[in-house]
Amino acid sequence: MQYRIEKDTMGEVKVPADKLWGAQTERSFENFKIGPKASMPLEIIRGFAYLKKAAAYTNCELGVLSEAKRDFIAKVCDEILAGKHDAQFPLVIWQTGSGTQSNMNVNEVIANRAHQLAGMKIGEGDKTLQPNDDVNKSQSSNDTFPTGMHIAAYKKLVETTIPGVEQLQKTLSQKAADFKDVVKIGRTHFMDATPLTLGQEFSGYAAQLEHGIKALKNTLPHMAELALGGTAVGTGLNTPKGYDVKVAEYISEFTGLPFVTAKNKFEALAAHDAFVESHGALKQLAVSLNKIANDIRMLASGPRSGIGELNIPANEPGSSIMPGKVNPTQCEALTMVCAQVIGNDMAITVGGMQGQFELNVFKPVMAANFLQSAELLGDACVSFDVHCAQGIEPNYDAIKRQLNNSLMLVTALNTKIGYYKAAEIANTAHKNGTTLKEEAVNLGYVSAEDFDKWVRPEDMV
Amino acid sequence: MQYRIEKDTMGEVKVPADKLWGAQTERSFENFKIGPKASMPLEIIRGFAYLKKAAAYTNCELGVLSEAKRDFIAKVCDEILAGKHDAQFPLVIWQTGSGTQSNMNVNEVIANRAHQLAGMKIGEGDKTLQPNDDVNKSQSSNDTFPTGMHIAAYKKLVETTIPGVEQLQKTLSQKAADFKDVVKIGRTHFMDATPLTLGQEFSGYAAQLEHGIKALKNTLPHMAELALGGTAVGTGLNTPKGYDVKVAEYISEFTGLPFVTAKNKFEALAAHDAFVESHGALKQLAVSLNKIANDIRMLASGPRSGIGELNIPANEPGSSIMPGKVNPTQCEALTMVCAQVIGNDMAITVGGMQGQFELNVFKPVMAANFLQSAELLGDACVSFDVHCAQGIEPNYDAIKRQLNNSLMLVTALNTKIGYYKAAEIANTAHKNGTTLKEEAVNLGYVSAEDFDKWVRPEDMV
Amino acid sequence: MQYRIEKDTMGEVKVPADKLWGAQTERSFENFKIGPKASMPLEIIRGFAYLKKAAAYTNCELGVLSEAKRDFIAKVCDEILAGKHDAQFPLVIWQTGSGTQSNMNVNEVIANRAHQLAGMKIGEGDKTLQPNDDVNKSQSSNDTFPTGMHIAAYKKLVETTIPGVEQLQKTLSQKAADFKDVVKIGRTHFMDATPLTLGQEFSGYAAQLEHGIKALKNTLPHMAELALGGTAVGTGLNTPKGYDVKVAEYISEFTGLPFVTAKNKFEALAAHDAFVESHGALKQLAVSLNKIANDIRMLASGPRSGIGELNIPANEPGSSIMPGKVNPTQCEALTMVCAQVIGNDMAITVGGMQGQFELNVFKPVMAANFLQSAELLGDACVSFDVHCAQGIEPNYDAIKRQLNNSLMLVTALNTKIGYYKAAEIANTAHKNGTTLKEEAVNLGYVSAEDFDKWVRPEDMV
Amino acid sequence: MQYRIEKDTMGEVKVPADKLWGAQTERSFENFKIGPKASMPLEIIRGFAYLKKAAAYTNCELGVLSEAKRDFIAKVCDEILAGKHDAQFPLVIWQTGSGTQSNMNVNEVIANRAHQLAGMKIGEGDKTLQPNDDVNKSQSSNDTFPTGMHIAAYKKLVETTIPGVEQLQKTLSQKAADFKDVVKIGRTHFMDATPLTLGQEFSGYAAQLEHGIKALKNTLPHMAELALGGTAVGTGLNTPKGYDVKVAEYISEFTGLPFVTAKNKFEALAAHDAFVESHGALKQLAVSLNKIANDIRMLASGPRSGIGELNIPANEPGSSIMPGKVNPTQCEALTMVCAQVIGNDMAITVGGMQGQFELNVFKPVMAANFLQSAELLGDACVSFDVHCAQGIEPNYDAIKRQLNNSLMLVTALNTKIGYYKAAEIANTAHKNGTTLKEEAVNLGYVSAEDFDKWVRPEDMV
Repeated sequence: MQYRIEKDTMGEVKVPADKLWGAQTERSFENFKIGPKASMPLEIIRGFAYLKKAAAYTNCELGVLSEAKRDFIAKVCDEILAGKHDAQFPLVIWQTGSGTQSNMNVNEVIANRAHQLAGMKIGEGDKTLQPNDDVNKSQSSNDTFPTGMHIAAYKKLVETTIPGVEQLQKTLSQKAADFKDVVKIGRTHFMDATPLTLGQEFSGYAAQLEHGIKALKNTLPHMAELALGGTAVGTGLNTPKGYDVKVAEYISEFTGLPFVTAKNKFEALAAHDAFVESHGALKQLAVSLNKIANDIRMLASGPRSGIGELNIPANEPGSSIMPGKVNPTQCEALTMVCAQVIGNDMAITVGGMQGQFELNVFKPVMAANFLQSAELLGDACVSFDVHCAQGIEPNYDAIKRQLNNSLMLVTALNTKIGYYKAAEIANTAHKNGTTLKEEAVNLGYVSAEDFDKWVRPEDMV
Repeated sequence: MQYRIEKDTMGEVKVPADKLWGAQTERSFENFKIGPKASMPLEIIRGFAYLKKAAAYTNCELGVLSEAKRDFIAKVCDEILAGKHDAQFPLVIWQTGSGTQSNMNVNEVIANRAHQLAGMKIGEGDKTLQPNDDVNKSQSSNDTFPTGMHIAAYKKLVETTIPGVEQLQKTLSQKAADFKDVVKIGRTHFMDATPLTLGQEFSGYAAQLEHGIKALKNTLPHMAELALGGTAVGTGLNTPKGYDVKVAEYISEFTGLPFVTAKNKFEALAAHDAFVESHGALKQLAVSLNKIANDIRMLASGPRSGIGELNIPANEPGSSIMPGKVNPTQCEALTMVCAQVIGNDMAITVGGMQGQFELNVFKPVMAANFLQSAELLGDACVSFDVHCAQGIEPNYDAIKRQLNNSLMLVTALNTKIGYYKAAEIANTAHKNGTTLKEEAVNLGYVSAEDFDKWVRPEDMV
Repeated sequence: MQYRIEKDTMGEVKVPADKLWGAQTERSFENFKIGPKASMPLEIIRGFAYLKKAAAYTNCELGVLSEAKRDFIAKVCDEILAGKHDAQFPLVIWQTGSGTQSNMNVNEVIANRAHQLAGMKIGEGDKTLQPNDDVNKSQSSNDTFPTGMHIAAYKKLVETTIPGVEQLQKTLSQKAADFKDVVKIGRTHFMDATPLTLGQEFSGYAAQLEHGIKALKNTLPHMAELALGGTAVGTGLNTPKGYDVKVAEYISEFTGLPFVTAKNKFEALAAHDAFVESHGALKQLAVSLNKIANDIRMLASGPRSGIGELNIPANEPGSSIMPGKVNPTQCEALTMVCAQVIGNDMAITVGGMQGQFELNVFKPVMAANFLQSAELLGDACVSFDVHCAQGIEPNYDAIKRQLNNSLMLVTALNTKIGYYKAAEIANTAHKNGTTLKEEAVNLGYVSAEDFDKWVRPEDMV
Repeated sequence: MQYRIEKDTMGEVKVPADKLWGAQTERSFENFKIGPKASMPLEIIRGFAYLKKAAAYTNCELGVLSEAKRDFIAKVCDEILAGKHDAQFPLVIWQTGSGTQSNMNVNEVIANRAHQLAGMKIGEGDKTLQPNDDVNKSQSSNDTFPTGMHIAAYKKLVETTIPGVEQLQKTLSQKAADFKDVVKIGRTHFMDATPLTLGQEFSGYAAQLEHGIKALKNTLPHMAELALGGTAVGTGLNTPKGYDVKVAEYISEFTGLPFVTAKNKFEALAAHDAFVESHGALKQLAVSLNKIANDIRMLASGPRSGIGELNIPANEPGSSIMPGKVNPTQCEALTMVCAQVIGNDMAITVGGMQGQFELNVFKPVMAANFLQSAELLGDACVSFDVHCAQGIEPNYDAIKRQLNNSLMLVTALNTKIGYYKAAEIANTAHKNGTTLKEEAVNLGYVSAEDFDKWVRPEDMV
């Protein structure tokens, strides 16, 4: 391989000649061979591209950067956002906990790429841009990395997570409406209970997701706060006056999202409670979705020896050994995602609780787990919606059979003959394998006519 | 011991003669010998007292319960709320997951105590109140237990947690103001960094708690939704028309808190996402408090071989073997509480994700963990505030010494001579054990006059 | 209330006259009003009693304590072990993280009680024993508290947890043997699958617990290592030669358990990985038990609209509104315990990861969570065993009906006609609501005779 | 793109013409667009290659597969193990929870590749191998996927995790030996305590890892148990006699690892407690490593305003804004890995607890999290060892200065003058900012000569 020499404050480093990165990126690449390469999420690199461009515009507007330099920076950022340099970001999550090395990776790539755009060969001639003094002007890793995290997370939430969950929520609401007249047996403690409609059951699922979406949206204002302008420790050292507010405005403009400068920059560097808060809502959604997916696979269980009240789409052969088997595979994928999100919540918690003094140095691990959860939840909801939820249909035969069998219809008699006599009817029917009506009449507690009038599942929902 | 015979639908049971409970309580007492006795939190019993009284008022108002019975029920509930019957609730958390047995415990105690109030001896004469048909009228365990949970949790949050955290937040804000002119060295990655004021450092702590309180308050509307009126499976079977709205109004009136009937009763029985949501905010507070308490103990470390920038109150002898030792014990108590809350969050998550069909049967474990977290956080914040935070004072000598030593003051030169030359100055001073000024001048990058003008910690904050 | 004056190195403190504790206990009592009083587990106090007595014997044997003082200490320790002074330990978990204050609580109670035994009134005359110099001789909180933790945890594991789990394991093994000829349908993905015997199903449960018990026992050697003799930081300062080995021998003798001195005292004070390790095994058991209890309640679901293959004991009326309902309450209690143990594992992890330098100061929270898990798991297994597992019986009718219905019996044809044709048979029967045999013959793939010969559930297990 | 038609029991599917996979892979690829493509770990695919080859050999030896077919299967498996077909496994973790689709992916690739090896074009002529009837012979996804999981996990543990941790453990042990005479101040509660040697401090770290490695090795026997031979539900349906034992022997031979057939196949399919157990030990290691890495960064903190007792290698420029800053980046990477492992433990717990009946359908998520943890821990230990631990050196000046300052040396006087007088000396020196010796003499408790004789840090370790 061909190499060129790059320098930083520690000295010279050999870098592959065909790469745009510089000395600090290469050092990190060599020093952190932990897990698969390039694991730092590209979403964060894109977040950096937004903020570097915004910083350049702000620096220029506030008189500390030339228009020429601003335009070079902006042009490379646009290229990064267009996905043209994805191979230039080889670093891993498991680097310095401030993400300094990924910040420098971006700075170096922008500087070297700008040099190319200026018609020069990397390493030759005067630098078009200095990575630290120009690209990183009015910035520190300590405020850029959290800003990149917030941009990436916010975008993922509003572009993937929320639309995905809302799509599924809408389908479940529609099913609640569609099934509003399908009376079925209820189940509590896994045991037969009083009836409800299938629509009511689905309305509960829809309500869970509605609450979850609301909870998630409640967290967005904190996530919209950007650390940029705090620089090294939150004081804003080496930034021009008005920089923090303006740079957030540019980021808001470039992303089309309602970012603002953080009210307290010390909190924004030293803690990442916004991630803890927002991921708490993702975990809540995971809890809800786990319940919903579990219910659906249990209701669809069978086809002959389960509950079998729902038909769900048969998408794939279910078994490599059992011919003709079809499984609730979307429920399984979704619940596995829920398990992952719950695990990720703990990783984020453990990272979030360990900030020290002016900096939390668990930024990359918190960001990576957050982005994975946000993406998986959104994707899994869409997949579950398209390949399962939309196709759910009642199995009317099974529903009717199980409803009419139920001993818990006796509950309707509580207000007529009292709980104790009603219990005696149910217990006797259970013991004898008979119907409630038979035993109600036999025991002399209710006439057949009254029974038919009082015990009507359709009136019990 | 003396016993009397009580009956339920399964038959006769011997109950200690001096106890007010009945057959179902006794069965549960015998069948669940798991952990310490009477572990079911009394706060939940109190929640039941509010709702049983409200149900009686509503039932009466809607014409399904006599005024006499209403008044009996209300009177016993008032006694329970006054703490007169605490010994009558012997059951454990680890019972049926719907809390049915605790609901019946309350029903039985109310019925038997009412019988006493009516001047009768328990077990003799016609029952003054039937536990199921009167006390539990228009109710099911499935809607009462979650209602009791919500009442207990909401009360604990607004009476203990929020006031406790707010008290500490206020002190930290005050300290931020008090210390606004104390310039000190910043630390990132545990390493010396650019300066900030001690007030700024504390403002970050205050901001964390402010965000946390806001996040917690965001969850209150979900917690204010009550399941009562859903009865067995959410349909409201066996309740009179208008019952759910009215009973919530009574609960709101009796508690003075803004409870409302749940929009979707199916969600309110089958899921306890409100607990997951609200405890997520408690966990966020734990994450924040862990950071704050850790910082404070590290800043107060020493007295001679640590950072020593803060003096905290010396409340107890710190060591049974090392004479004269004083430790940051309030920080330790608080961080242990944080560990507990983070653990409780997982218990609640695991419970919350496992609802099935029309009911979640992890109610008691979720409620108990929630109440513990809410109480511990509130209490620990008050304890930390009174015995530590209020007494925090700067150690000016240590602060000044460490500030003036710092090599990171060189950062002020970035905008004057560029990052690379500034780095050379810092590295040389570090290597030689000299001051920045000496090396800045030696290297010929800055004159002594300029150095004194440019590198002023008080201008860097 | 009457008070007396007690002193420590910080000065005078008023203590209730009828209490045996001293100044440091009282300070802690006042300074840590967090959660319910006296939450520090008594098991740890008992652990202290063992070790204080052992220390006294060792100190005496090694010539640094008189026989008279040894005997006073031992006598009070025996009283504590006999439960005579439970009310003398009012402190909470949420105190200093080293447990120093509980160590001093024990020291003070021993010293004051010894004074009484010597015929004196507390506070009058020369002290019979000095809390620090005599009772705490050759000790520090830093080695006594972890020793007390290990003693308490080890005892709980071998006296409650392991016997409880083994009792349930034995019952499940017995059921596996009892049900070895009961052929039933298998279920994978909640869907009908090939048959197995009910005995095989239960053998899986038994095997899970067997593995779990083995995993737990693997952790005992680490738990058997005692920190005592490390004193303040692990060096053993202020202990006589040979003290650490000998004091562990005495503890082993007094408890009848195989305790040994820790090979590395620095690890034993600064980390509590033995708790993390051992509780990891408790968590594994919780994972296993959750699966087992869930299976059993699903297999027992119904009575008419569930799977209904098992009958479990009906121990209590299941519903306050649905007459005649019986629920799998022991499964619910057990799975709630599992949720708690999983949560506790996280609390212990969070505590365990945060040791600093020579000491981990999350000792009380780790110990309390561990002891709760160990007790709950043992108790819940016994409760589940006695009130559920022992009474489990097959519902032969349901088992037979569901077995014969199953389309997955077609798997037996794979080796005869290949997976693809077998799948066609199953799919056709499913679509038409017919039997496998009908479609096998109709499709011309298998003769009726061959079908009967090849598709025999009893040969498929 | 060019396509060909592939078929399965559900019908025809278009597959990219240049891919080796078949219909079921393609269906899964289309139906599960969740997260990044091809996220199913290649280690599991390699595990499948081992077991498919072993199954072919066993089937052949037991007379149910021809030698020709065996050799085709074996040849493709060897190609897969050599990494020649990595692009043929496009599926994600978030598919069916049994991993059926990845099992079929392997079956299909083997069958199609064998067809090529036989000189045919895919889709033309008679199939050389049937994916289900030949490649999957005597197998089910339900026993192959867990077998693949166990092979992959075991290999990762013994090839990456254990060697990595052992390498670091060895360095820490060496440092303990190297630093055995470096007396330094101890710290408990972050506060100055009695002295110990730096070697003793490091011996604690080494002991933690030694315990952790032992705990991990304790879990290997469970992990060595293979499900293969259980087929669909654990009964071994459609396997020839003796198959399970023999196939495990072949796997053991091919991998060189001590795999055995699982004693209880029902457990091996329906639960993955071996993963829970073994990852519990990984979590324990994470807890230990978090403590060690935290200590090292705190001990190396500074350079001028921290503890500064250790020098660690300066590997990269630490800050994009603060010139000359060097940070403990390896500590940060390692502790971030610890956070991830702790999170992964929860994901595995949540998956493990939710097995149902004869199958746990959280296999892929459990496997993926396990493999990530095992790899990250091993890699991070090596990285930490090479780039940090090996280069750790004492900063003798700082160590000496802080030792001699310490007030806790007074503890040596406990056995001479008693705890109370010693405390008075320390408190007075602290208040007056003087030395212990001065105050000891001033107070008249110890002569200067005795002080010098008794208070010698080097005798206190």
